[in-house]
Amino acid sequence: MSSQRATAFVPGHVTAFFSAHPAGDPAVAGSRGAGLTLADGVTVRVSAPADAVDGDGNDGDAVDASDRDGGGSDATDGGSRTIDGEAGSIGAVDDVLAELDATAADVAVETDLPIGAGFGVSGAAALGAALAANHAFDRACTENDLVRIAHAAEVGRGTGLGDVVAQARGGVPVRLEPGAPGAGELDGVPATARVEYVTFGELSTETVLDGDTDALTAAGEDALDRLRADPRLPTLMDAAREFAREADLLVPEVAEAVEAVDAAGGEAAMAMLGRTVFALGTGLSDAGYDPEVCRIDAAGARLVDGRDGE
Amino acid sequence: MSSQRATAFVPGHVTAFFSAHPAGDPAVAGSRGAGLTLADGVTVRVSAPADAVDGDGNDGDAVDASDRDGGGSDATDGGSRTIDGEAGSIGAVDDVLAELDATAADVAVETDLPIGAGFGVSGAAALGAALAANHAFDRACTENDLVRIAHAAEVGRGTGLGDVVAQARGGVPVRLEPGAPGAGELDGVPATARVEYVTFGELSTETVLDGDTDALTAAGEDALDRLRADPRLPTLMDAAREFAREADLLVPEVAEAVEAVDAAGGEAAMAMLGRTVFALGTGLSDAGYDPEVCRIDAAGARLVDGRDGE
Repeated sequence: MSSQRATAFVPGHVTAFFSAHPAGDPAVAGSRGAGLTLADGVTVRVSAPADAVDGDGNDGDAVDASDRDGGGSDATDGGSRTIDGEAGSIGAVDDVLAELDATAADVAVETDLPIGAGFGVSGAAALGAALAANHAFDRACTENDLVRIAHAAEVGRGTGLGDVVAQARGGVPVRLEPGAPGAGELDGVPATARVEYVTFGELSTETVLDGDTDALTAAGEDALDRLRADPRLPTLMDAAREFAREADLLVPEVAEAVEAVDAAGGEAAMAMLGRTVFALGTGLSDAGYDPEVCRIDAAGARLVDGRDGE
Repeated sequence: MSSQRATAFVPGHVTAFFSAHPAGDPAVAGSRGAGLTLADGVTVRVSAPADAVDGDGNDGDAVDASDRDGGGSDATDGGSRTIDGEAGSIGAVDDVLAELDATAADVAVETDLPIGAGFGVSGAAALGAALAANHAFDRACTENDLVRIAHAAEVGRGTGLGDVVAQARGGVPVRLEPGAPGAGELDGVPATARVEYVTFGELSTETVLDGDTDALTAAGEDALDRLRADPRLPTLMDAAREFAREADLLVPEVAEAVEAVDAAGGEAAMAMLGRTVFALGTGLSDAGYDPEVCRIDAAGARLVDGRDGE
């Protein structure tokens, strides 16, 4: 029933606010907070060499990784690595593949989201690689196993603390307790909405997380308390704006956009951590921006190809 | 931001095997086991009278409940209740509405799934009513709150033990510990597949659950141990067949269909608790049946209308 090839989709995730909770065990480390998962996300295609897979292999209708355009490929332990068709790899993805004994895979990461701008692309790529490699190599992990592996890889690389568990759930995830399944605890704000976003550039997650996070974490805990007392989207957006101010993370272009959306009667906030503003509904359009448009993702991370029983 | 009207979709759920775990507190009671959630499911439309909602009410693009065809409506505490356009209500739905102080709602339940045949329609209707009523009445519950309310209603009515938590998650849910969020614990088999099913009639969940469940529970625990040791779809199907035999729940038409699918090289099992057989891929078609066809649902229960910020 293994397919040798598999494809996974993982939604983007804009964090509205968070508190950092480091720990020696990367599966226990993580963040509390809340955010929106987005129907704009990351697709990961994994292709296993035939001799690396036990089982009956090959289901004919899976997408052939060689159909991708873009000739670039970066051989790592035998398998190629591409990001949007160009040779390149992501640290957390490499660590996931090593953990699943799947470094021989060809791995293609594709996304329309900007990288390093607060959409959790590295976490999404890690989780997508875990889901697709598990299937292509017939590794028999559960969903919780795969989320744990991707979360630990992301935390180990210092590129994120809470994106992976949020992206696994979908919707509007609330991280009540930090960490991977078994340690962490999740809830969600039941909501569906159109989301607009504009990105002004990169902001280094590592630099912020490596600095003094005490003020940030105090502000994040306050924001979470507010949301738990009133778990609705407008409260989430208001708590996000207050968090950005209190944690002193607002950058000028984002502050200006948030103010412009507010002046036009909408709801916007900064994506943590990126030079990105996101808004509900037509908030950014109404304020005169030319945003990307998507929706809250209802499903969370999922295999989209690599079918059993077909 | 309240919408007064909201629509939720909840996937069907065929239980492959289970063990029953009664408890005094219905949020703690439940079942262990595993099953498949289906893209065929239940849509619940809730409409709140204007005077029952705090907030700014009314977003113009929500579906108008009065657009439904079918003139039948059964006034209960003021609100109408329909199932597929005919007057009628479901006990667990009534209990959910009471818990959310939303009995004044007009509630329309729509499904293509057969009722009483092992697809978890009552649980899906309860969870869909919870999601939609929470939004329409602006009740500010979290997703976990709503799953807990729907699970308790379903357990209280004796119509199911594990469907609601499975339907909330989507995919191929594995119920590691019984009960609602806060008590129960879930994992999932990462898989996507085409699913076929044929129904031969109703089987009363209440009658089985009210009887002696010791043999059933022992068989269910064995099946769960097998799946946890090898969390893949073919193992789930095999464990389901063994469970049905050991728990002595197989009905003749289903046993015959399972054998026919096996003889044709496919994988089929009985949906617990219904006179229903489900198969992966083209299993039932290949065996000469004329099945309904759908896929594993990736998303789980979700609001599909009742949008914030639009």
